[in-house]
Amino acid sequence: MINELKILEQLLPTLRKSSELVIEPGDDCAALQLPGGQLLLVAIDQVIGEIHYDSQLTSPMVAGAKLMKRNLSDIAAMGGTPRWALLSLAVNGRSEEWILDFCSGVRDAGEAFGVPLIGGDLATLPMVGEVGSLAILGEVPATEVVRRSGARPGDLLYVTGAIGNSYKSGHHLDFQPRLGEGRFLASKHLASSMLDVSDGLLLDAIRLAKASHVDLVLEVDAVPLRSGADRQLALSDGEDYELLFTVPAERAESLEREWSQGFATLTRIGIVETGSGTVWSPTRENLSENRKVGYEH
Amino acid sequence: MINELKILEQLLPTLRKSSELVIEPGDDCAALQLPGGQLLLVAIDQVIGEIHYDSQLTSPMVAGAKLMKRNLSDIAAMGGTPRWALLSLAVNGRSEEWILDFCSGVRDAGEAFGVPLIGGDLATLPMVGEVGSLAILGEVPATEVVRRSGARPGDLLYVTGAIGNSYKSGHHLDFQPRLGEGRFLASKHLASSMLDVSDGLLLDAIRLAKASHVDLVLEVDAVPLRSGADRQLALSDGEDYELLFTVPAERAESLEREWSQGFATLTRIGIVETGSGTVWSPTRENLSENRKVGYEH
Repeated sequence: MINELKILEQLLPTLRKSSELVIEPGDDCAALQLPGGQLLLVAIDQVIGEIHYDSQLTSPMVAGAKLMKRNLSDIAAMGGTPRWALLSLAVNGRSEEWILDFCSGVRDAGEAFGVPLIGGDLATLPMVGEVGSLAILGEVPATEVVRRSGARPGDLLYVTGAIGNSYKSGHHLDFQPRLGEGRFLASKHLASSMLDVSDGLLLDAIRLAKASHVDLVLEVDAVPLRSGADRQLALSDGEDYELLFTVPAERAESLEREWSQGFATLTRIGIVETGSGTVWSPTRENLSENRKVGYEH
Repeated sequence: MINELKILEQLLPTLRKSSELVIEPGDDCAALQLPGGQLLLVAIDQVIGEIHYDSQLTSPMVAGAKLMKRNLSDIAAMGGTPRWALLSLAVNGRSEEWILDFCSGVRDAGEAFGVPLIGGDLATLPMVGEVGSLAILGEVPATEVVRRSGARPGDLLYVTGAIGNSYKSGHHLDFQPRLGEGRFLASKHLASSMLDVSDGLLLDAIRLAKASHVDLVLEVDAVPLRSGADRQLALSDGEDYELLFTVPAERAESLEREWSQGFATLTRIGIVETGSGTVWSPTRENLSENRKVGYEH
C-alpha cells in the first residue's frame, strides 16, 4: 500500500504557485479565478479494480458510476456545482461490452447531475485489470466557496447521512454525492469549513482541524451509524462520501431550520476549540493518536 | 490491444452536449467558452509502463515528463497556451523515490512551459506497474483556436520536424511539444486546421481529412524523416508529436517568411482537395486503405 500522505508531504511544497490559483492542492478541489467572479473547481480521482471495488462482484456500470460520484463528492465538498468531466481508462482482459458499460456508468452518473463527459483517453494495460481516472471541473462563486481551513473556535461540527460499514453494506457503490447539501451550505453562507468523508471520519476530521488550525471535540456517541456499523470501527471505515462541516454557533438555528426535507439527515457531532489540529473525545482522549485513524487507498 | 476507435464510435454519439462546449470530444482538446472571449481547452491522456515506455530502460523522471509533454502537445495542436495540470498515478512495486521522481518529471516538464500541477491523486495498483493520467487545462482566444475541421480545398499541408523511427531513436521520450509553433500558427491566423501527429502521420492525416470533409494528397517523398526511419514505415510509426496542419495557399508565403529560426523545421508535404476523407499519394494510390495506417495505443 502506498503511503500517499508521506509522498504528498514531500511533493506539495515543491509545486510552483499560479497567480490564478486561489485554492491550492490539498483541499478537495483546487480553485482557479475565472473572469467574472466565478471560481473554476478542478479535481482528479481514480477507481481501480480490486482496490476500490471487487471486479468479480461489481458490474462495470456501477464501477464507472462510482468513479464519477467520487469526483462529484469532491465538488460538493467545496459547495460547488459540477459542470464537465474527462475520463481516462486503462484496461486489459475486459470485453468491448465491459468497457462500454464502464464508460456508460461514468456518463450516466454524471448526466444525472448535469455533468457531460467532454473528453477522454482509452489505453491498454499490460496486465488484466482496469484503472479509471476522472478529472472534474465545477464552478462556485468566489464569495461562496467553502474550504477545509475556515473552522473557528466555537463553531459546531456536523455530518450528513450515516457513517461506517460502507464496504459490506454496498454504500461505497450506491452512495449519492451530497451536491444539493453542499450548494445549500455554501450559498447560504452556513458552513465555515467543509470536506467530504472519504478516508474515515476521524482522519478527515483531523485534516479539517489541521487545515483550520483548530482542535475538534468529536462526540463519538453522537456519530450517526449506518446499519451494521461498529461505533469504533466506523470512525476509520472510510468511503462514506458524506459532508463533514463546521457552522458558526449563531448560524446553527438557521441551518437546522432551513435544512431541506429532501437532504440527507443532519447530525451535530462536535464543537471546534482553540488548538492546532487535534481531535479529542468528550472525555479528552486524544483520538488523533490512539488508533488506526483512517483508510488509505 | 483495445480498439479505441471502435469503442469511441459507439460512445461519442451517446454523450450529451453542453451549451458552453464549443469544440466537442474528438479534437485534440475539448474547448469551453469562458467569460471574456477566451476558450478553456481541456484534455486528458495517459502513460502506462510497458505500453508507452519500457520501465526497465526509462527513468521515472523521463516517463513522467513524457506524460506531461503528450498533453502539452494536445494544447499545441489547438494553438493554445497550456496553463494548469492535474495528475493521477496508480502504482505498485515501485519505491517511494521512484514515485517522487515520476511526479517530479511531470512537474518539471510542466513548469518548463509555465504549467503548474494544481491537483492530483495517488492510488495503489493491485499488480506491479504504473498508470499515470494527466488532465491539462489551457487557454486560447476563441478567434484563434485551430480545429481539425477547418481544411479547405486548395490549402497546403505542412508538418513540423521529422517523422518516423520515434521509438528506437528515443524521440518518443525526448520530444519537445510544439507549443511555440502552435501559438504562432493560431495567433497569426495561418493554420486552417491542425492536429498533433501521435498515432502515425497517415492515420492522423486521415483524421484531419475526415474532420474537414476533404481529401488530402500526401507527397510521401516529401515527408521529412527522422534519422534511421524507413519512408513507408514512418507513415505509421506514431509518437512523432509534430504538428500537421493546413494553410490557405495565399497565406503560404507569409507562413514560410515569418516562420521563426527557433522553431522546428517546416515542410510542405501535400495539398487539400475536394473529397470526403481520403488520403491519396501523388500517383492516386488510396493510402487510407492499403496498409496498416497507424499505431493504436
